[in-house]
Amino acid sequence: MESKVRVAVIGGSGYTGGELLRLLSIHPHLEITAVTSREYAGKPISLVHPNLKGFLSISFSDLNMDKITEKADAVFLGLPHKVSVKYVPDLVERGMRVVDLSADFRLKNSELYKEWYGYEHPYPDLLQKFVYGLPEIHYEELKNTKLIASPGCNATATILALAPVVASKVVDSNKFVSDVKVSSSEGGAKPSEGSHHPERQNAIRPYDAEGHRHAAEAEQELSLLAKDKIKVSIVPHAVSSVRGALASAHTWGEVDDMTLWKNLASFYRGRKFIRIIRGNIHPYPDPKYVIGSNFADVGFATESRVGRITMFSAIDNLVKGAAGQAIQAFNLSVGLDEDEGLRIPPLRPA
Amino acid sequence: MESKVRVAVIGGSGYTGGELLRLLSIHPHLEITAVTSREYAGKPISLVHPNLKGFLSISFSDLNMDKITEKADAVFLGLPHKVSVKYVPDLVERGMRVVDLSADFRLKNSELYKEWYGYEHPYPDLLQKFVYGLPEIHYEELKNTKLIASPGCNATATILALAPVVASKVVDSNKFVSDVKVSSSEGGAKPSEGSHHPERQNAIRPYDAEGHRHAAEAEQELSLLAKDKIKVSIVPHAVSSVRGALASAHTWGEVDDMTLWKNLASFYRGRKFIRIIRGNIHPYPDPKYVIGSNFADVGFATESRVGRITMFSAIDNLVKGAAGQAIQAFNLSVGLDEDEGLRIPPLRPA
Amino acid sequence: MESKVRVAVIGGSGYTGGELLRLLSIHPHLEITAVTSREYAGKPISLVHPNLKGFLSISFSDLNMDKITEKADAVFLGLPHKVSVKYVPDLVERGMRVVDLSADFRLKNSELYKEWYGYEHPYPDLLQKFVYGLPEIHYEELKNTKLIASPGCNATATILALAPVVASKVVDSNKFVSDVKVSSSEGGAKPSEGSHHPERQNAIRPYDAEGHRHAAEAEQELSLLAKDKIKVSIVPHAVSSVRGALASAHTWGEVDDMTLWKNLASFYRGRKFIRIIRGNIHPYPDPKYVIGSNFADVGFATESRVGRITMFSAIDNLVKGAAGQAIQAFNLSVGLDEDEGLRIPPLRPA
Amino acid sequence: MESKVRVAVIGGSGYTGGELLRLLSIHPHLEITAVTSREYAGKPISLVHPNLKGFLSISFSDLNMDKITEKADAVFLGLPHKVSVKYVPDLVERGMRVVDLSADFRLKNSELYKEWYGYEHPYPDLLQKFVYGLPEIHYEELKNTKLIASPGCNATATILALAPVVASKVVDSNKFVSDVKVSSSEGGAKPSEGSHHPERQNAIRPYDAEGHRHAAEAEQELSLLAKDKIKVSIVPHAVSSVRGALASAHTWGEVDDMTLWKNLASFYRGRKFIRIIRGNIHPYPDPKYVIGSNFADVGFATESRVGRITMFSAIDNLVKGAAGQAIQAFNLSVGLDEDEGLRIPPLRPA
Repeated sequence: MESKVRVAVIGGSGYTGGELLRLLSIHPHLEITAVTSREYAGKPISLVHPNLKGFLSISFSDLNMDKITEKADAVFLGLPHKVSVKYVPDLVERGMRVVDLSADFRLKNSELYKEWYGYEHPYPDLLQKFVYGLPEIHYEELKNTKLIASPGCNATATILALAPVVASKVVDSNKFVSDVKVSSSEGGAKPSEGSHHPERQNAIRPYDAEGHRHAAEAEQELSLLAKDKIKVSIVPHAVSSVRGALASAHTWGEVDDMTLWKNLASFYRGRKFIRIIRGNIHPYPDPKYVIGSNFADVGFATESRVGRITMFSAIDNLVKGAAGQAIQAFNLSVGLDEDEGLRIPPLRPA
Repeated sequence: MESKVRVAVIGGSGYTGGELLRLLSIHPHLEITAVTSREYAGKPISLVHPNLKGFLSISFSDLNMDKITEKADAVFLGLPHKVSVKYVPDLVERGMRVVDLSADFRLKNSELYKEWYGYEHPYPDLLQKFVYGLPEIHYEELKNTKLIASPGCNATATILALAPVVASKVVDSNKFVSDVKVSSSEGGAKPSEGSHHPERQNAIRPYDAEGHRHAAEAEQELSLLAKDKIKVSIVPHAVSSVRGALASAHTWGEVDDMTLWKNLASFYRGRKFIRIIRGNIHPYPDPKYVIGSNFADVGFATESRVGRITMFSAIDNLVKGAAGQAIQAFNLSVGLDEDEGLRIPPLRPA
Repeated sequence: MESKVRVAVIGGSGYTGGELLRLLSIHPHLEITAVTSREYAGKPISLVHPNLKGFLSISFSDLNMDKITEKADAVFLGLPHKVSVKYVPDLVERGMRVVDLSADFRLKNSELYKEWYGYEHPYPDLLQKFVYGLPEIHYEELKNTKLIASPGCNATATILALAPVVASKVVDSNKFVSDVKVSSSEGGAKPSEGSHHPERQNAIRPYDAEGHRHAAEAEQELSLLAKDKIKVSIVPHAVSSVRGALASAHTWGEVDDMTLWKNLASFYRGRKFIRIIRGNIHPYPDPKYVIGSNFADVGFATESRVGRITMFSAIDNLVKGAAGQAIQAFNLSVGLDEDEGLRIPPLRPA
Repeated sequence: MESKVRVAVIGGSGYTGGELLRLLSIHPHLEITAVTSREYAGKPISLVHPNLKGFLSISFSDLNMDKITEKADAVFLGLPHKVSVKYVPDLVERGMRVVDLSADFRLKNSELYKEWYGYEHPYPDLLQKFVYGLPEIHYEELKNTKLIASPGCNATATILALAPVVASKVVDSNKFVSDVKVSSSEGGAKPSEGSHHPERQNAIRPYDAEGHRHAAEAEQELSLLAKDKIKVSIVPHAVSSVRGALASAHTWGEVDDMTLWKNLASFYRGRKFIRIIRGNIHPYPDPKYVIGSNFADVGFATESRVGRITMFSAIDNLVKGAAGQAIQAFNLSVGLDEDEGLRIPPLRPA
């Protein structure tokens, strides 16, 4: 039997970190060798992630680069943006495989970090070396990289909804508004006024409605596909569920349903985690039916009366929107099938 | 002391009926004299509406027109569409005041009933005599009518979001998509596969995405305000809460925030149930903060980078979206203040 | 028209404070003259309580005793325990009517503060002057006091469930375990790890299971009724709803249902906020049907096969469990009907 | 490579059936050869279970015993009680391995079917041949049987909470009340008035409070362990979550915490799906942290002041409470490890 790829997780105490651990712990070809947490170093992992009690024998450790890289072939970073950028260059220099789940290496144009994230990116050259970790778009490049910048959840939902129609130009509008409905786990594990249960439950609350950061990466990727400058507006809304995000990407044009269906089917042919949703009982995607899995369910609706087209995409924000997709991309980069360790049916009802 | 206006409720066993009873039971100038229900005739009202135990001494009765109209000055109908239309003409003939909460008398153009509701409207002339019961738009007309067609919930949310910008033409686009997020009580009191708790909870589920019926009334009212043909697409999404609806009405144009704010403030000046939401802590409307009340919280967001404008409106679908608005309109028609019996602060947290 | 009773609220930024403001703002005989908040002094009340936008013209003020007492006849305190006790004696000295919603004046036996709250009560004599503000038990005393210690929510639910059977001794056991299911608003407005939405939603989480503080007041009141030492164990469980608490108070004995029903009916005869729940469709109390109101729905179930008796009581923890009950008790103390300003039907569905 | 065990599922359209399919589809040693559904015969499985789209190539079929048994070594029945009993004897006669998830073969004493289920059991002899499929109690017997009666969810939670203290007699009371909090998926996939989302969400609703059927099997199993007649009262309460059940089994006695802890640790030593919960951050079991998995988290709390002991057990009602446990028991009966195909970490947050 071949040996497993040794993986370290830097920043393992948040929800993304926890989800990485959940999925890595059952991956047949990957092995967790270290999990760091500044706050919980020395403490058992199940103290923070009670679901994992019994699954991991190691404890959280401090972020000691030498120690970590000595026993790992690859490092997944589950850190906030502006923090990841402090550690990644060192890891690159040490020749490690890197999967960064923050926004710090997603954008090719370093100017955009000033505009959207409010900081001057210190390593503009390094940006060019990372592959944007959306396997449905960068399948071949991911097979040939050691550096992966894993996409944001709302960007993933928006790109997967719009990619087929933008790439094929079956919709020739440049007015796209992706109205995203997001669950509370998207906000991370840190409590806040807005995440306080009595305030968050039953909310239907728009936020970042003047411009959501994930538009930057969505525009980068969609423009690449369109070979043209694409503009997308993302308007997220907090709803009551804990997991799942739905992008309803509205645009304008005259396309019949059959053309759209064929467009999706052809664009996503062979992609194992895309399911095209169509039919009478469940006519559109609903994140409820991908919970716990790496699937993105995509679909569409048209209202020819007014020339409105809506492209839908439903994901579990912590799996396809974060940890699952990171592993999917990493699988490709180490020569595994993209769905290795990820052939998990969604939970239902949940 | 003046005598109270005597009110009968036909179809009192659904959620709209129950909400009418809740609000009428504490109205200082209205008195409930009969509540009908085919299914529950003879049974105590609290059997169906356990919250009302102790508030109403009468029981459900059969729909006997003679008996009902004898002891009522006005009739509220909480029936489904196509059913209301069977009873309303008789009530009109008997000289009753009528508030119909179904869709059967909302549209002026009888052709639209064929297109949107699939039936030939049998009383096209009667349609002209009804006033569309949205007091923020038809304030004066409501003071001079005995016949009120109470608006649909998603239409109310969409119209209140868009009315100011459409009426003033500060937004000159004719591309409007109202992405509405709706709670489960919108679907009514009858169980179905889609309303089954394990399926409905945690859903983020688009429905009627090829064309929602409430677009017909929204277009009628917005076109009236614009003195031009306005086209609106309504795309509803079922989310997990029980009460509340948010319309995020997206459109395109170049308007600055101050102009939009002034536009809203001027359009809704003096309207007691409109609250304009703006500021740092709560920048946009959230139905969570109007629960149980007749308020519509309105607001907006612009993303000038891409020329996208979103107009928001948040309501409690059973109050401002149904029973509360019906009473508000009725108040005006009988010479009361529009907020009589409705000065109820929203519940929070809820 | 007689003048209104002027009321100040000290500590108005929490959930109890917000609920007091919601109810006081529509009370026909009470008038809010000041609302203090250390954190928000000078800020509009709707900044903290967005539901109240449009209902209160005053802003939060600092806690200046002279200013507050000058323009108030009564003070409601919505402060945490150990904080209330710092202000109450001064207010008493100034001759104010006081309604304290903290635990600081609920217990007659000052020793219990050491045992349950971990502090030495500095005013043991003052404890004797307060009336425990549960009108269903201390109706007459409340009419003759200026000092009210408003009960805790889980204590209210437990006492109202058990009072009839304990007072009448139809159940002669002294083994009572009140298994309480509580909503998230019970925990107050301050965010914490446990109240973080992704952790709190879908929890069914026991807490304080080694002894919940409200047992102290429940035992005090039940012992008083029984004229005997009663021991009660309260075991609370956090569930997903935002409002509402259900006490399932289990005990042992041989009593038939009719005897129990008569016992409840007789004990609560004339009490306006108690509804006895019994029947086929809704056989037991459910807090869902008292939301937003001051009702306590009570009921019971027996399993004679094993000699188990369960007494149920369902309340809205912020109304009958806090602000509503405080106003109910205060109404009595100023000579008003107990339900003045509180004749509000519960919201349904919610 | 050895061949897989061929498994048929009779009654695969409900939640238990769906969960069986989810788990069987990823089991390395079992293979689904047929799934029946009277209602959906001929339809794709993903029509009913949209989560499983892409996981199963077969469709629902009719219940044709010859065809089914020809291509299966074992049959799992996901049918309602009184229906299962019609098919099981035939399957037994044909020499099939049988795992029945209904109540029809759980009780040894046929008289109890009359008392609790209202029917005369037609095969009292066959009852003796079935092993009650709770591997934590019947580990060895399950290894030597072809006939498994899979336990009820509330019974599983209650038995696992109480088994250690009853078996060891560290608690010598015979007063046990298991206050169970249950999620909506326990009610099955068929919509009803009580499961209608607006009524079910935010409910804290006792049901079957005069005697819940699962008491029969809980008493059977606990009496067996105690070698004495044990009486248990189960009082279920519907709460808002979709998955998960918590049993808080209250009883009386004088036992210190260390003794209880040792008792649990010793009783459950080596049992792979039992996790003993204890500590500061998460002191008691919460079903939230077993969602999607076959774990039962167990724990306890004592209040020595009043002599109250509570034994807790938290399960996912569809996994350890139904489909997962059925597979766990079946694994043993065919010589596999009990956790084969079930080493799935719980989902969190969910």
